[in-house]
Amino acid sequence: MPFHRYSAAPALELPDRTWPDRPIVRAPLWCSVDLRDGNQALAEPMDLPRKHKMFALLCRMGFKQIEVGFPAASQIDFDFVRELVELDLVPDDVTIQVITQARAELIERTFEAVDGARQAIVHLYNSTSPLQRRVVFDIDRAGAIDLAVSGTRLCTKLAEDHRGGVVSFEYTAESFSSTEPDFALEICEAVMTVWQPAPDRPIIVNLPATVECAPPNVFADQIEWMHRNLSHRESVCLSVHPHNDRGSGIAAAELAVMAGADRVEGCLFGNGERTGNVCLVTLGMNLFAQGIDPMLDLSDLGAIRQVAEECTRIPVHPRHPYAGDLVYTAFSGSHQDAIKKGFESMEREAARLGRSPRQVPWAVPYLPIDPADVGRTYEAVIRVNSQSGKGGTAYLLQSRSGLALPRRLQVEFARTVQRYSESHSAEVDTERIWELFGSEYLRPGSRLTVAEHTSRPAAGGPVEVTALVSLDGGELRVSGSGPDVAAAFAASLAAGGLAVRTSHLEEQVVGEDTAVYAECVVGGETLWGVGLAADPARAAVLAVASAVNRTSAQAV
Amino acid sequence: MPFHRYSAAPALELPDRTWPDRPIVRAPLWCSVDLRDGNQALAEPMDLPRKHKMFALLCRMGFKQIEVGFPAASQIDFDFVRELVELDLVPDDVTIQVITQARAELIERTFEAVDGARQAIVHLYNSTSPLQRRVVFDIDRAGAIDLAVSGTRLCTKLAEDHRGGVVSFEYTAESFSSTEPDFALEICEAVMTVWQPAPDRPIIVNLPATVECAPPNVFADQIEWMHRNLSHRESVCLSVHPHNDRGSGIAAAELAVMAGADRVEGCLFGNGERTGNVCLVTLGMNLFAQGIDPMLDLSDLGAIRQVAEECTRIPVHPRHPYAGDLVYTAFSGSHQDAIKKGFESMEREAARLGRSPRQVPWAVPYLPIDPADVGRTYEAVIRVNSQSGKGGTAYLLQSRSGLALPRRLQVEFARTVQRYSESHSAEVDTERIWELFGSEYLRPGSRLTVAEHTSRPAAGGPVEVTALVSLDGGELRVSGSGPDVAAAFAASLAAGGLAVRTSHLEEQVVGEDTAVYAECVVGGETLWGVGLAADPARAAVLAVASAVNRTSAQAV
Repeated sequence: MPFHRYSAAPALELPDRTWPDRPIVRAPLWCSVDLRDGNQALAEPMDLPRKHKMFALLCRMGFKQIEVGFPAASQIDFDFVRELVELDLVPDDVTIQVITQARAELIERTFEAVDGARQAIVHLYNSTSPLQRRVVFDIDRAGAIDLAVSGTRLCTKLAEDHRGGVVSFEYTAESFSSTEPDFALEICEAVMTVWQPAPDRPIIVNLPATVECAPPNVFADQIEWMHRNLSHRESVCLSVHPHNDRGSGIAAAELAVMAGADRVEGCLFGNGERTGNVCLVTLGMNLFAQGIDPMLDLSDLGAIRQVAEECTRIPVHPRHPYAGDLVYTAFSGSHQDAIKKGFESMEREAARLGRSPRQVPWAVPYLPIDPADVGRTYEAVIRVNSQSGKGGTAYLLQSRSGLALPRRLQVEFARTVQRYSESHSAEVDTERIWELFGSEYLRPGSRLTVAEHTSRPAAGGPVEVTALVSLDGGELRVSGSGPDVAAAFAASLAAGGLAVRTSHLEEQVVGEDTAVYAECVVGGETLWGVGLAADPARAAVLAVASAVNRTSAQAV
Repeated sequence: MPFHRYSAAPALELPDRTWPDRPIVRAPLWCSVDLRDGNQALAEPMDLPRKHKMFALLCRMGFKQIEVGFPAASQIDFDFVRELVELDLVPDDVTIQVITQARAELIERTFEAVDGARQAIVHLYNSTSPLQRRVVFDIDRAGAIDLAVSGTRLCTKLAEDHRGGVVSFEYTAESFSSTEPDFALEICEAVMTVWQPAPDRPIIVNLPATVECAPPNVFADQIEWMHRNLSHRESVCLSVHPHNDRGSGIAAAELAVMAGADRVEGCLFGNGERTGNVCLVTLGMNLFAQGIDPMLDLSDLGAIRQVAEECTRIPVHPRHPYAGDLVYTAFSGSHQDAIKKGFESMEREAARLGRSPRQVPWAVPYLPIDPADVGRTYEAVIRVNSQSGKGGTAYLLQSRSGLALPRRLQVEFARTVQRYSESHSAEVDTERIWELFGSEYLRPGSRLTVAEHTSRPAAGGPVEVTALVSLDGGELRVSGSGPDVAAAFAASLAAGGLAVRTSHLEEQVVGEDTAVYAECVVGGETLWGVGLAADPARAAVLAVASAVNRTSAQAV
């Protein structure tokens, strides 16, 4: 492959960087650009109804800054901003933001769009990288600064004239991460000389990775360098806007916040040009999973996802962090087993503390968060395929039927499920597991059926069982005694020429019924039987019959 | 949201870390786990034909180590490994790898699976984190070490007995990134005491982020600490296996390689449990895009993606780095314009150097790599929606028809396309752009048609044009003179009461035809007309007629 055509961007030297030792302790300010950067990257951009639906979702989620369009470039964006203003659709604590290039007629049109808005951010950008200066604009550094400064001058003037509210200002040095750091600083300082930021008149300085072109630590170094060197730092809201061309947008945003960024622009589920903007859902959930308030309401991720998919017409990938269909799912046997034990351990811990499991610290292997915290259910966590083991199968069976199988029975039944799954090369859902269990253990068998039975205490302590059975085609009345009903019934079958004994027995109350799990040795072979009936004695007799019938089934 | 249930994993203190100043300079050793970790996470795991298809793809791509299954846990995995060995399907320079838990009967079965293999890696794992030790295994540190050591002892013995080739050894401290670093080191050292690594008998020590639980810099610190402290370092191949629960698997792998890792395990397109393993395609392409040989053949990403989607039945997301449908696409007008200029600049540079554009360094804004380097085409890059501007429209029109519109005509026609796109709220494809152009500029108009015309040099130099026209419903013969055919024909229309003059004229040869672009002033209004004909004079006349007809069209 012609890798010689490419080279690494020169990295900034910053050996005294501090960001690797400064973990994030609070959420940055979020700005959604779903309605602008996200929207412009759709094959079918949102129409007005979809724009309103997205805006309402973003407000519900708790975004306080929302970029709502590029009104000078698109009539539909302009119309949407006018509707937001004129129909008074913007909550008091939300500020809308509109982007514009640094050209006079576009800036004027942009201010027209927000005319009368209570609060708005006008977001001015121009490209600053050497490649853009040379190839696209044919200007030098001074020319790029001139564009930014004259644009800012016009914005400053029009902001003063704004009717009915406050216009704040954001400046983006577009393609920042590919720009020489000293020039990025110079152009931002030139803009600030015009805007004159002060604590009561801050400026948002936005530093995008317009195209992600280096590992995230390089971006973090760039941000820390700007953070250290920008003047008026107390009046600057330092913002980042990472894209995801190298698949590291999340890391770039997080490391940049560690490096000094106050604010992050991005989109839900990483919509946006090409590989998308950084995903704000993942960023918020990453904070949540570390015990930090995300300052967004992500508790109904399913509903958020549904609206986003409807508006963008782009699906969320099944493996998208926190929100994908498969991300709380374990197919592997060892994972399923560990998750099952984790849930059980949390339940014990909750019981010990007298709380609900959702109130105790989360500690389940293979699941970074409790799916219930984002509206997902436990049942969906464990799914069974041919790679699964006893844990997943047993978990699903129990969730469906209440039956809590003894461990060795789990192992035995898992083999049945795995054989089925391998021969069908497909996932086995809960209903199918229940059917397989029923046909393996609970259906009337061909070898031994029990027409009636009675049991009573026998002399000396053990139980005596008498029964009318059909065994290997012949009807007969049998009786036997033993320490419990199952053992006594097993012993009774000697009269029919069948050597059976129980080697392990468990009993479980399941609703109105009792389940009996009997591990039996039938003619030298060890295998399980299960009986389920309202009468515990009947369940015990059926369990032994189930084991006997399974030998027959296997012999056939 | 109940964020108080969670807390950040305690980070290792490593203030003298060196990885942030050690960029990657060569590709790590890649190990694909598509057929194991990837496969076990599918609702429908691969059947044998799909396994073979995936294995063949991985070999073609240049993987030298391929984990082919968990044979002791799955009959189909066992059968697949046997087929690879017995049918001699493994290339000489490829080593297959099989994973097993640290239990004697599973280890023995695993060695059975690779019996007779020329070279194989047996991959032993056990869980080491405090949570797993407590909740899943109910063992202390010594118990976990005991599992690892006795498993390694059996592997060492069985490897010595292996028939027909060499068995290498990999040990994974599963859930490493959630394990106390000193204990992770202790258990790896205990394993090495048994295996006795040496330069001619290396060991792979694999340190996974089984669940990604911290930002990637924390993982890099952990890896650097292990890299510094592991004994026998020259005989250890230090491997990482990042998952993507926080969306930072790519960054974790890259920072870990900077921190000292020699080897990366992952899957194509990030398949794998939950959010998936790290995506090896993205990692390879990230190296490529920085001028480093990825040591994988990714030049036909489309074919790679097709096989992967067929085998996993999971789609690659449209925004997946390097491989998604939308990642080389620009919808935004300014991006399209910049990309168009970038392509033109590269063509000029190539011409200057006497090379093809694919031989000169890549320098196009908004596109991190040349799509052609991974089998994508330029034409697919630019797509037009209502957010697009003149650049994209003009680019697509030119790619379809060869017509290279003058800049002001691009602006005029882009408005037509944008109006169409906004009213249809949809993407406008190349064919539709060509249709819109045709109906706007090239179709016979209702106001002015030209039945015939002749042109000849007039006295004194300029051209004289005579034509039979139908103008505003009346037939008439007109004649006029001017510096060129278009100007002369425009002047001739004064005889029909129509004041027309050309204000700008461009001519372009398009295959057998000539296109004439005429900016005209018709009754005070400035607008463009286009003529396309084999005869350049006819094209000029048609261009003027086109402009006249567009006034009429607009008046209606």
